[in-house]
Amino acid sequence: MSYATPVRDIRYALKHMAGFDTLAATGAFDDLSDDLIDAILEEMARYCDEVVAPRNRDSDLDGARLENGEVVTTPGFREAYQAYVDGGWNALAFPESAGGQGLPSTLAVVLIDALNAACMSFAIGTSLTIGAAKAVKAVGTDEQKRLYLEKLVTGAWTGSMNLTEPQAGSDLSAVKTKAEPVGDGRYRITGQKIYITYGDHDLTDNVVHLVLARLPDAPEGTRGISMFLVPKFHVNDDGSPGARNDAHCIGLEHKLGLHGSPTSVMAFGESGECYGTLLGEENKGLRNMFIMMNSARLDVGTQGVGIAERAFQQAMAYAQDRKQGRAPGARTGAQVAIYEHPDVRRMLYSMKALTDAARGICYANAVAYDLARTSPDEGIRESAAGLEGLLTPISKAWSTDRANEITSIGVQVHGGMGYVEETGAAQHMRDARIAAIYEGTNGIQAIDLVGRKLTGDGGAAAKRLIGDMRSTSLAATASSNATVAKAGAALGRAVDALSASTDWLLETAAGDQEAVLAGASPYLRQFGNVAGGFYLVRGALSALDAGLAEREMDYRLTILGFYADNYLSEAEALTSAVTAGSASVAKIDPDAIRGL
Amino acid sequence: MSYATPVRDIRYALKHMAGFDTLAATGAFDDLSDDLIDAILEEMARYCDEVVAPRNRDSDLDGARLENGEVVTTPGFREAYQAYVDGGWNALAFPESAGGQGLPSTLAVVLIDALNAACMSFAIGTSLTIGAAKAVKAVGTDEQKRLYLEKLVTGAWTGSMNLTEPQAGSDLSAVKTKAEPVGDGRYRITGQKIYITYGDHDLTDNVVHLVLARLPDAPEGTRGISMFLVPKFHVNDDGSPGARNDAHCIGLEHKLGLHGSPTSVMAFGESGECYGTLLGEENKGLRNMFIMMNSARLDVGTQGVGIAERAFQQAMAYAQDRKQGRAPGARTGAQVAIYEHPDVRRMLYSMKALTDAARGICYANAVAYDLARTSPDEGIRESAAGLEGLLTPISKAWSTDRANEITSIGVQVHGGMGYVEETGAAQHMRDARIAAIYEGTNGIQAIDLVGRKLTGDGGAAAKRLIGDMRSTSLAATASSNATVAKAGAALGRAVDALSASTDWLLETAAGDQEAVLAGASPYLRQFGNVAGGFYLVRGALSALDAGLAEREMDYRLTILGFYADNYLSEAEALTSAVTAGSASVAKIDPDAIRGL
Repeated sequence: MSYATPVRDIRYALKHMAGFDTLAATGAFDDLSDDLIDAILEEMARYCDEVVAPRNRDSDLDGARLENGEVVTTPGFREAYQAYVDGGWNALAFPESAGGQGLPSTLAVVLIDALNAACMSFAIGTSLTIGAAKAVKAVGTDEQKRLYLEKLVTGAWTGSMNLTEPQAGSDLSAVKTKAEPVGDGRYRITGQKIYITYGDHDLTDNVVHLVLARLPDAPEGTRGISMFLVPKFHVNDDGSPGARNDAHCIGLEHKLGLHGSPTSVMAFGESGECYGTLLGEENKGLRNMFIMMNSARLDVGTQGVGIAERAFQQAMAYAQDRKQGRAPGARTGAQVAIYEHPDVRRMLYSMKALTDAARGICYANAVAYDLARTSPDEGIRESAAGLEGLLTPISKAWSTDRANEITSIGVQVHGGMGYVEETGAAQHMRDARIAAIYEGTNGIQAIDLVGRKLTGDGGAAAKRLIGDMRSTSLAATASSNATVAKAGAALGRAVDALSASTDWLLETAAGDQEAVLAGASPYLRQFGNVAGGFYLVRGALSALDAGLAEREMDYRLTILGFYADNYLSEAEALTSAVTAGSASVAKIDPDAIRGL
Repeated sequence: MSYATPVRDIRYALKHMAGFDTLAATGAFDDLSDDLIDAILEEMARYCDEVVAPRNRDSDLDGARLENGEVVTTPGFREAYQAYVDGGWNALAFPESAGGQGLPSTLAVVLIDALNAACMSFAIGTSLTIGAAKAVKAVGTDEQKRLYLEKLVTGAWTGSMNLTEPQAGSDLSAVKTKAEPVGDGRYRITGQKIYITYGDHDLTDNVVHLVLARLPDAPEGTRGISMFLVPKFHVNDDGSPGARNDAHCIGLEHKLGLHGSPTSVMAFGESGECYGTLLGEENKGLRNMFIMMNSARLDVGTQGVGIAERAFQQAMAYAQDRKQGRAPGARTGAQVAIYEHPDVRRMLYSMKALTDAARGICYANAVAYDLARTSPDEGIRESAAGLEGLLTPISKAWSTDRANEITSIGVQVHGGMGYVEETGAAQHMRDARIAAIYEGTNGIQAIDLVGRKLTGDGGAAAKRLIGDMRSTSLAATASSNATVAKAGAALGRAVDALSASTDWLLETAAGDQEAVLAGASPYLRQFGNVAGGFYLVRGALSALDAGLAEREMDYRLTILGFYADNYLSEAEALTSAVTAGSASVAKIDPDAIRGL
């Protein structure tokens, strides 16, 4: 079985888990009929499955390389990228006024899911272009918009985000790259950036770098960072690419995975001739970058969903094909497919249950993003914004932590063959591994969750969501369907545990910041487990209501039951880790650890 | 900081966690004084740190390759291996009568820990040589012993284990390799084996293959498998290597990790001229192989401990060195080492707590192995054998599952640098990944635990261990040390949960085998979590009793507290996964999953 975009599962997640239908009620979109969505998803699947997915293996074996100062990408990437632009995929969620298709951002998130499953190293570049387009649209001057916006919206040119420097990874206050005004409205940029995804490549005839740098008189720390637009080729007044700018890729990282994605070391102004323009206000670079990063974080979480799906499908196909051992209880007879073994099904159902839960969280996050921006009702906009803020670090960190586990289970299902690269299972594990790191490490997501999203509004958004979870658990517990009722009860217990953790964090935040930080990561995991269960239960209730076909419903219920038995119970146990306090990670003298 | 064998931690695990001192009481060993053990450990550390560890990075970059039909290993491996033989390391735990040093096998397990931390791809070959030596010693003829035993005991020649064939991975009943008697006591061997660790190499001037094959009249299934000794070079009567045998490496696998270890495709008798001798009785090959495999499984678990230790040390050094962000609560000032951040310490303490727990389990398993074979007291021997049997699948699977997690956390601590291969953190994760797969996948270990080790004696060994755990938890709860008392109480709750799971499995085993198999993996995880906590608590009680220096004691107690807060609570939650029953993994029609 080759890989196929899981259109039915995407549809289920949109409709039954994430409440996609609420977007139609906003009146902000022309047409969100089932027929239109189905047509988009079918077309998306065709593109991903036929054009992109076949490149995945090659992207690992024959990845990006630097030749004579130019980046050469995997054979076939250029054609696949051109088809991406031609298909209008990049422009999906931009307003028609900006050259887009005016569809909800939620569908752009669905595209990220599908595209990353097809070929993650190809897909991850597109998020950065969309982010750059959003930045230019939000804070660009009229001239910047005239020259760059449509190119970025359509993806005719790609964007890159230049934040990290060797001494400034998670801590952007340490950024040193300099920008000096040269008097004609332009700025001379000097500095080096590392880990720049698609910093250079041969897919398009220009690359638009957004670069964080400091003006000469800028204050120290993050309040002195500005954002600059630095094109690879300067743009002529008619919009065509002109002279080469002094912005060069001087090296590519040798990475664990994602070999198809050129991770560039970028040198700006090595010859002193790199020029760019200020994008947004002086010293507001970080704030503007964060506008994009919040949605980029949801994108990365969704990358986790995509690669998990890919790993699941491969493991499932292998388990149906590979014959080893006898059926449980049988001592003789023909070998059976390993799918017949309960322990192998446990692995596969773990992969599927976690993937579906993560998809529910990410899609619900996307719907909240759209509602917060399009609902005519201020109350809905506000509560959606609160939900969006809360779910974003969970989407990012929980989905990618789980993607690491899921892709590793995928290797395990393959046994010894999983350890051999030809099989391809190991590639998914290697590719997935970055997602828990970039766009803010998962530890930083956890700190964002407890330090900003939870406590920023005094716990209001969290308590609202917990209230929704409780209502859903009560509704489920009362269901005549035994599996749903049991899962509802498990959800109720898990929500109680989450609520206890939440109360403890809110009470502790004022007096003992270190204790809150110590509990951040298990809290995020607990929240993710419960949220995943919540969306699965909500999905089952909605699907039962809608009269989903029995065959599919039985499958959904088995996965729901598995999730409840395994991951909702895990959530209950996490309160002790969350509330252990700072003594739990009290600082030990490193020399005492080493025995010195 | 470069890597150093954790001699102090090894000493602590032996003395306080695993009860190594009980071996002296058996009278089976000449001298197990602290001074002798210290001297051995210091010498071991010198060898591992100075000779082996420096090869680790090269082994990844410049791994084994096949050139003109011969395997060429990583530069420096030959010299390191010669030093291994010269140092008497391979012979450590063999009786002096067989050319060994007559020390407990527990010390051979310690060596596996240290050697795998130094360079896993170098180390894993040695376990197979020791296994082959044990096989020849146990079931070899006088002639086989005369020609091969000392060579294998000293490691002058290496051994290889040839079990797997393409259609026979976990399921050895499907082995097809043929052995036909040629009339002079020899057998002509024909067949192909895959995934043969160190199946060929250039470290020694002979390789001794133990090969599973079928005699012409053999019964079907596992009862028709015999074991054969097939040398790479036939051995002359004076013991020198003679003519080349028709046993060739015809390919090396391209693996996710362990590039330094040649994983060979072995062709026996491609020209019809491969000859070997029967090792052990006809059709008893699998039973004899299992004698070795049980101790090989402990070895693999210990490989997990070693690679986890290596990953921890690297992450710890990085966290002390890498500066990012400010101290918790501070908004300005100099960047601090990331070790100052509570969430980073959480990652590091997770790594250390799990590594120490796994070390405790594996070493206790090793001590039980020795006691079962050397105690003059039959009761002790029997209960030690029960404990050894029970702990073996836990050592193997829990330690290696945790090693996967630990090495992945190691990558995470490094942030973006962890994803770049030059850093070396990713290598540990790639290298570790095989250990959960080979020597019986971890799923098979779980099935062994519930299907044989737990129920084989009606739960007697498990209940004895659970009883010991309960006594220790009570003793700890009564401790005047608050951390120990709290951990003791957490252990008590976890033991209750384990006990409930155990009772359920024992009750269910008779009637519903599928339900037991469905709960096998979470039961193993639960058992491992509780056993790890048990040995950590036992260690703390013993160390307090012995008056361990306060500085080290404080460190041990912090790690213990962390483990209790995070992993003993997790154990409690696992009962619901264990006892969910077969419905939890009810078979879904794969087409329903795919939406067909």
